[in-house]
Order: sequence, then structure tokens, then C-alpha cells
Amino acid sequence: MYLENINSPKDLKKLKNSELEALAMEIRNALMNRLSKLGGHFGPNFGMVETIIALHYVFNSPKDKIVFDVSHQSYTHKILTGRKEAYLYDEHFKDVSGYTNPQESEHDFFNIGHTSTSISLAGGLVKARDLQGNNENIIAVIGDGSLSGGEALEGLDFASELKSNFIIIVNDNDMSIAENYGGLYKNLNDLRESKGTCECNLFKAMNLDYTYIDEGNNIEKLIETFNKIKDIDHPIVIHINTTKGKGYKIAEENKENWHWHLPFDIDTGKTKISNFEEDYGMLTCEYLLEKMEKDKKVVTVVAGVPGNIGFTKEKREKAGKQFVDVGIAEEHAIAFVSGIAKNGGKPVFATHSSFMQRTYDQLSQDLCINNNPATILVNTASVYGMNDVTHLGLYDIAMMGNIPNLVYLAPTCKEEYFSMLDWSIEQNEFPVAIRIPCNGVVSTNKNYEKDYSKLNRYQIEQSGNKVAILALGDFYQLGEKVASEVYKKWGFNPTLINPRYITGIDKEVLENLQKEHSLVITLEDGILEGGFGEKIASYYGTSNIKVKNYGIKKSFPDRYGVYELLKQNRLTVEQIIEDINKFI
Amino acid sequence: MYLENINSPKDLKKLKNSELEALAMEIRNALMNRLSKLGGHFGPNFGMVETIIALHYVFNSPKDKIVFDVSHQSYTHKILTGRKEAYLYDEHFKDVSGYTNPQESEHDFFNIGHTSTSISLAGGLVKARDLQGNNENIIAVIGDGSLSGGEALEGLDFASELKSNFIIIVNDNDMSIAENYGGLYKNLNDLRESKGTCECNLFKAMNLDYTYIDEGNNIEKLIETFNKIKDIDHPIVIHINTTKGKGYKIAEENKENWHWHLPFDIDTGKTKISNFEEDYGMLTCEYLLEKMEKDKKVVTVVAGVPGNIGFTKEKREKAGKQFVDVGIAEEHAIAFVSGIAKNGGKPVFATHSSFMQRTYDQLSQDLCINNNPATILVNTASVYGMNDVTHLGLYDIAMMGNIPNLVYLAPTCKEEYFSMLDWSIEQNEFPVAIRIPCNGVVSTNKNYEKDYSKLNRYQIEQSGNKVAILALGDFYQLGEKVASEVYKKWGFNPTLINPRYITGIDKEVLENLQKEHSLVITLEDGILEGGFGEKIASYYGTSNIKVKNYGIKKSFPDRYGVYELLKQNRLTVEQIIEDINKFI
Repeated sequence: MYLENINSPKDLKKLKNSELEALAMEIRNALMNRLSKLGGHFGPNFGMVETIIALHYVFNSPKDKIVFDVSHQSYTHKILTGRKEAYLYDEHFKDVSGYTNPQESEHDFFNIGHTSTSISLAGGLVKARDLQGNNENIIAVIGDGSLSGGEALEGLDFASELKSNFIIIVNDNDMSIAENYGGLYKNLNDLRESKGTCECNLFKAMNLDYTYIDEGNNIEKLIETFNKIKDIDHPIVIHINTTKGKGYKIAEENKENWHWHLPFDIDTGKTKISNFEEDYGMLTCEYLLEKMEKDKKVVTVVAGVPGNIGFTKEKREKAGKQFVDVGIAEEHAIAFVSGIAKNGGKPVFATHSSFMQRTYDQLSQDLCINNNPATILVNTASVYGMNDVTHLGLYDIAMMGNIPNLVYLAPTCKEEYFSMLDWSIEQNEFPVAIRIPCNGVVSTNKNYEKDYSKLNRYQIEQSGNKVAILALGDFYQLGEKVASEVYKKWGFNPTLINPRYITGIDKEVLENLQKEHSLVITLEDGILEGGFGEKIASYYGTSNIKVKNYGIKKSFPDRYGVYELLKQNRLTVEQIIEDINKFI
Repeated sequence: MYLENINSPKDLKKLKNSELEALAMEIRNALMNRLSKLGGHFGPNFGMVETIIALHYVFNSPKDKIVFDVSHQSYTHKILTGRKEAYLYDEHFKDVSGYTNPQESEHDFFNIGHTSTSISLAGGLVKARDLQGNNENIIAVIGDGSLSGGEALEGLDFASELKSNFIIIVNDNDMSIAENYGGLYKNLNDLRESKGTCECNLFKAMNLDYTYIDEGNNIEKLIETFNKIKDIDHPIVIHINTTKGKGYKIAEENKENWHWHLPFDIDTGKTKISNFEEDYGMLTCEYLLEKMEKDKKVVTVVAGVPGNIGFTKEKREKAGKQFVDVGIAEEHAIAFVSGIAKNGGKPVFATHSSFMQRTYDQLSQDLCINNNPATILVNTASVYGMNDVTHLGLYDIAMMGNIPNLVYLAPTCKEEYFSMLDWSIEQNEFPVAIRIPCNGVVSTNKNYEKDYSKLNRYQIEQSGNKVAILALGDFYQLGEKVASEVYKKWGFNPTLINPRYITGIDKEVLENLQKEHSLVITLEDGILEGGFGEKIASYYGTSNIKVKNYGIKKSFPDRYGVYELLKQNRLTVEQIIEDINKFI
């Protein structure tokens, strides 16, 4: 066992070249231990074991600084920099996050989870080094899939301007999460096929020096090249040809499914957690496939995450030209769907709330100023969504809810979601975003409104008095529980409202509430600041009615427990009842 | 005169090839008439006269669709598509905007003012055309300067996936607003020098077909090439070498100053409006130059608009390596300054509020999750800023003010601005953004706080009773006027507060106000929705104090008059006094 003696990169350097292969095997076993039990990013980590060993063998971290893109391939780096216990021992799994994290180690420089950022972040390290006259090596690691993102391309284009030591490692495994889309991948392919020698070269066209390593899982070759370019005096791209999922045949053979994987049985690769419940991804995909078959103008667009709305390879093939994956390129995606809508198509773009953040300006300028009727599905937008600090779905109401012209809808259940989606695809007046519920698939079997074109009309689900509960989107069920508890406790029925529209206020309903209510509470599944509830508070600012807003306090919670976070924000039924007691 | 007979592109097609040169001259005269009297984008329009004539000569707009990037080079297009009066006759100047605008003409497809969007928007038109089985030509026009933007690079990368008619015109005048920065410009230069023949080719590396036109101001050559590629069955880049400001020697010789120009004397090129007042751009530049001279770790970063903080060519040279223009690449800029701050530098990034919209995700993820102490200057963030719908400075409070960890400050005058800026550069705890005032340079000669590290403390400027006025940033002077009018009218002094912090609430101050005040009014220079005032309304939601929020109603006003917009939003002193009268 070599790994047990490695507590920092210094220990690694004591090993002979020949011992590193054995170490790589031990690292894969450690990765396998964690990933098979806990789940996580499989393919990127298995493919990068050798590159990361070689990097730490040649360079001197943390003086030399390595910045990992998305940082979902940094597990070997964590293992080699004092955090191996989190891979070897189950009781230490929770010691580390799935991403680089400066709070964990001096070898980590940024908390990174979004794609396409490493070149720009590392470029900043370069500039600061040069201003201070220091001389460490700065290394950005980026996968081929991340190269289609605008920030990565901006960073790559700018890199040559730095004119000093800057090493950009392109980890090319010929895959994004799914297949790569974009013309540059043809060039990467040409470069791989010509062993880096073809004249037309994206990186050289960006004015960068370039070296190719064909055997990207061969430690010796990697070390040889890294030794050559260590302390180089100008920016260079090292293009490394690796195998995603390397060392686990099942993953090598099905790269898309093994990019990220749930806990699994090592022998068979079979997922341990069986989940046959309905989910909104599957349901959305089924709905869209049917819709697209009936109407050739409907087109589904994703940006590198087809799985977010259930488009497996099979479903993508079924959709044919009516399904477009633009690659990791959210900015392009929004402008693209605006253009499709302008020219008579009926586009639906879906991505995670967290990735929608990439495209504020395109939502505002390309889509909403132009008022084109595209449909945007905002997924995992919830306290119940992903809980890593870089993947939170808590900010989209504040970000998108204040963009003029956008109609942002918050359905409360399956039936209402599909009513809204169907209306949105068929209408041609508004850019519409829909916040897909994220609290499990709730089915009411009720009939919902078919036409949402008269904007900002709230739905009164229960007429009552004294207290009105405005329960937005997937916090509607929380509102129901509070309403029922109010009745149980005090014997009166509060009014319960489904606001439906995030982006506007129903003045008529709000005016009428003043007659028989003294307290309005708002519930929303996202941060309070800039959100839905504050608009209600502002509306009632000069009235006698009292308003209490519930939501998550503005913050970056990391790997939180849902119940704890709700409780911290007084979002449990008991706490809300307690508060109501105070105010009425 | 040929121009007088041209009311649509059909009329253009009646001219002989040889008559088009004369027409180009007439168009330049028309451009000169408008631009010398009204000001506007000079260089881009003068350089593109021939290309646009040739486009309309060969293609059939509006069936064939041309999408202009930034659309600040579309004046000749407007002249040829029924809007020539707006260039020929002073009384019609206001008939058209400075950008393409579907409300003006069926030949315009999008309202565009931000850079780098045309390829993606046009790509959407292509996809919709193909879904419907139509066959028009789709043409995107983009300048070399816009190519450094992430959205453009994403669009360029994706274009080849469309696999059908798509013509991308790259108007290469070897300039952005200022010089170009980025490695790709070396490649464009190689392509120009080799007349498009050099093997390494950015566009081919994006898997695109490619043609080069060396004489980009030669109508005949342009027509010849456009005729060849009309109805082409796949995406192609037409790289055209043009001269920015072509036909006006003074502009050709000083391209940066003539990108956009104020009204001027045609003979001398001298600006007609002389403005020797202090402005925040000049002041910021002077301050930063001095700061950078004293401290080699300080670095100023801009993204293609050095002029926004007064960095003329001379000042840029003076700053040397401590000044970085990353090109039009706002996403990269924010990640880059986060990296600089992480590695011990003291970066200051400045751009217009409207362009800050490009970088929501980088502000949140690359900067604020990582809590790196960079300084961000948000310029022309105001109702008093630019008034074209695509360049409004009304949204940054809602966009940035709700990002966790960010400290967003709103100075009320010159002295406070520089106190905040100096503190921000020297501190190392927080990412800080500063909203540069935009209501003229107000100097108070008072001393301001030196240390803003105890967050969210409001400054009580005048203690009074009954009414408290929270007057944020450059609406502070409006607050002063209201306070003085209250005293005049009712004989009592209201409390006047300078909140200073956009991103947090001073609970102590707000609690104390409850004792002797019945009304709080908030004033902010931006949209109300998601803004500062709503947080105050929410805070007081369950109290007895009344709150009235003042700001601009969420909307996209276009070419508004400031006074009218203020009046529409009840933001004149008289209207506010009227309201106060109702509420107290």
C-alpha cells in the first residue's frame, strides 16, 4: 500500500516512477469505495487519475497552483493532498465536498462547481503573480466538454495576452456529460487523429503554444511532458487524450450514464437505489415527445444536460431534429430559442436553476426586450434541489422574477404544470418561464386554467378570513398544511391563495383581502431578498394589513439538510403557526 | 441623386453595378448629416456602407433575414429599408433609434444593443426555418470586436451543427471600441495578411466553411462573393476586411475616438458640445492612476470600454501592466479579478450597469461564493444614464443586490464615493461593488467614513420625526430636497438617512425609527421590483409603521425623457410631498 504513506504531495515525490502505476490502482480502489457507496462524478475522476498524479509529482502544490474546472475531476487531487480518508473510510465520506474547496485544503484555490471557469480564474492568479514578481507555476485544468462554454472561450482567447507562465491542461475524453456538440469538437478530433499535428488548431488560432499527449493515461509520458514545460515563460495548452471512466469497463462502455452515478454494485454496475417513482424529468420528456410528434414546429433545447428533463439517448433519437443539445452554452441557448420563436418555431429550453444564472443578460436582452414567445423551464429550483453551494436552486426568483416582460409561472402540482406548459408553447405573446415543482410529483387530478394570457391573476383556493396565505409554487402544499393547522387550532378558515404568477401582482385580489384580513403571509421556495413576498409587503406598505414573508434568508448554504434549513428560516408548519399566533 | 428613389431594397436592385458607388457616396453624406448634428456610432457605420449595399443588392430582405450584431452598424440598412428620412432631414432624426428595431421595420428582426448576440439569434432563425421547411437565406453580421464575447464564441462554435444555409459575415476592421485584446485577433491578422489562406483558421477550427474578401469596401467584389454563396446549403463565414470610419479621413486616422462621436464640425472634426465639467470617469481614472503608482498590486480591469472610467490611450499607457482590457468579455473579467484578488492582487473592474448583466453567474459563483476581495465599479447605473432600451442602468440593484456575500455600496457624492473605493481596494474580507453616482458630480466637502467593514450601518444625516426618508445613492439629493420641502410645508424636520449599503438592512436604525416615525419612504435610482425599498417594506411588514417605496416601475423604457420617466413614477419632489400628505 503506497497510498497510506501519502499525506501530501511531498510524500508522492518520494515514489519511483515505477511505483506510481501501483499508486494509481490504489487510488482507483479508493475512488471506487466512495463512489460505489455514496455516488458522485465517476467518469471524470477515473479518467484523470494519471494526469493528477503526474501534476503533483512534477509541480509543487500549493506554491504551484492547480485550478480544476467544475472541479468534479479533483478527487485524486484531494486524495493526494491530505484528504484520502474521505475516500478510504466510510465514516470520513462527509469530510469533503465533491468539489475543490479552500476551506478543506490550502491546495484548493476556489470553490468551483459550474463549468468553464478555470482558465479565467487561473488567469487571475497569473496576473496577480506577475504584478508581485513571483514565479510559481499556474495550471488550469479543463475538460473538453467545458470548452463550449462562453466563459471558457473568453478565457482561452484572453490567455495569450498574459504572456507569462500559464499552463492550460485540456483533458479531452471526447465527451461532455452526454455527446459533445459544437464545431470545435471536430477540431479536437482532428487533433487527436493527427496526434496533435494538424495545421488548423483551435488553440493555436487563439495564439497559444500547444503540445499534445496521446497516451493521457500513461503516467510516465505525462511526467515527461510536464517536466519539459514546468516553469515555461508563456501560456501553453497541453492537450491530453484520456479515457473517461478509465479502469472500470462498465463506465468506459457507457460514458454518459457514468459521468455521474448513484451508488452501485461494483461487480454488476447496477444502481443500488431503485427509484421507480414518477419524476418531472420523465414526465416532461414524455409530454414533449408527444407534443413534438403532433407539431413539427415544437423543438426542445438543452445546454449539455439532456437528463434534466429526461432526454436519454433513446428519447433524443426519437425526437430527431426537434431535439437540440447546444452543448454547455446557456447564453447561446437563450438567444437561440429567442430566434426560433421569432421565426415561427415553438422552442422549449430547460436547464437547472443554478445554470440559468449563466444567462441573465440573454434573458433580458435577447429574449425579453424582444418579447419573443419562447418557453423556459427552470428545473431543480428549490430548497429540495441540489444542495452543494455551487448548485443551489434558490436564486432564480430573485434573478428572473424582476426581468421586465418575462412571465414567470409557479405551478403547484403536476396538472397545473402541464396546463401552463401547454399554454406557453401555444401562445405567441410572451416569453414565459415555468418553475418546475421540486417537492415530488404532487397530483391533484383537478382541472386547471387553460389560458394564462390575462396576466397576474391569483387563484383563490379557499376563501376565509383574518389570515391570507399566499403559497407560491411548490410551497403551496406547505400553505395547505398551515391553513389546515390554523383551522384546527383556532377554528377559522384562513384564505389560501395560489399566486401562479411570480412576476406580477394581482391588485384586485390584494385589495379585496384588506376587507376581512389583518395578516397576509407569503411562502416561497427560494431566497426572500428580491423575491415574491417582498413585492406583497411593498404593495401593502401603506395599508393597515400586516405582511410576513417566508423564504430562505439570502446566503450560500452548503450541503445543508433540508429540514434544518427550513427550520433555521422558520419554515416549518409549527413555526409559522407560532408566528401567526403572535400577529393576529 | 439615387438615394431619393430608394424606398426599399427592391428599388436598390434597379441600379446598375456602376451606380452603386455613387449611391454609397450619397449614403455617407446622409450618415454625415445625422451624425454630425446628433452624434452616434460613426466608425462602424462608415465602414459598412458597401457591405450593406451589397447585401441588399444580392439578398431579398425581409424574406432573407439579416441580423446585425450590436446593430450599431445598421444605419445604411435603415437608409435602404425605407427610413432614409431619418438621416436626410433633421426633423425626422427622432423617427429611428440607433439600433435595429422590429417596431420600425419588417426588415429588422431584433432590438439589439449588446454585443456578441447576432450569431446565436440568427442561428435560432435558421433552426425555425428548417423545422418549417422554408428556404430563405439567414445572415448574421458581426464585427471583429464582438468576437471576443462568450455568447458570440458559443454561437460560432454551435453554428456548424445547424448544417444548413447560414451566412456569417465577419466585419473585420481590426478594432474593437479601442484596440482588440485576445489571441484570436492574431489569427484574424494572419488571415488578413495571407488573404484568407493561412492554414490555421479560427473559423475552420470551429468546423465552418470560410471565404475571405480582402477589399471589403469594394461593392463589386462584395456582390460577386455574395452571389456565389447565396442559397448555400451549409454554414459559412465570410470574412470581410473593412476600414472603420471609411470615407472620413479624420475618423480613419483616430478610430477609437470615432467609434461613437458627439456632434461635430464636418470640416475640422471638432466636437460641437464642449464639456469641461468634472465627471466620474475622469475622476476615477485620476484616482486609480495615483493609487496604482503607489501600490503595484492594484490593477484596473475593463472589458472593452476603457472610456467608461476615463482611461484614454494616454492614461492606459501610463498605467502600463496595471491596466488590463480583457476585450468584450465580461464573464472572463469577473472570474479574472476574483483570481487576482485570491492571489494577493487588488483588482478594480469597471463597466456599465447594462453590461454587468453579462456576468450574473460569475459574480455569484466565481466571485461571491469564493468571497474574494475584488472591487467592482458599476457605472451609468441610473435613470440619468443611457436611455436606449438596450443600454439601461436600472436593473443592477435588483440583479446584484440579492447575491449573497456581495457588499454593494451606494455613495451619495464624490467624497463618499472615493472613501468607499479606497476602503474597498485596501480591505481583504469582501467582494465589493460600488454604484458610481450618475447625477452629476456632487461635492459636499464633508468627511466620510473610512471603514465600511462593519456592514449594513446606515448613516443618519438628519434626525427628525414623523417621516423618515431613506435616500439611496444618487437619489440622496432628491431625499434632501424632499426633507427640506417637508420642513417648509409642515414645519417639522423629517429624518434623512443615507443607507450606504444596498445589500443589507440596518436593523438597529430601523428599529429605532419606529419610536417617533409613522412613515418611512425609500428612494432608489432603479427598478423597484427586487430592489432596496422592498426589503425595508418587508422588514416593517408586521409593524405599525407605514412604508412607501419610490423607484422606477419594472419595465423597458426606450429613449425616455428623464423628467417624464420620473414623473410617471411619482418621483418628483412635488409628487412625493403630495403622497406624504396622504399618509401622515
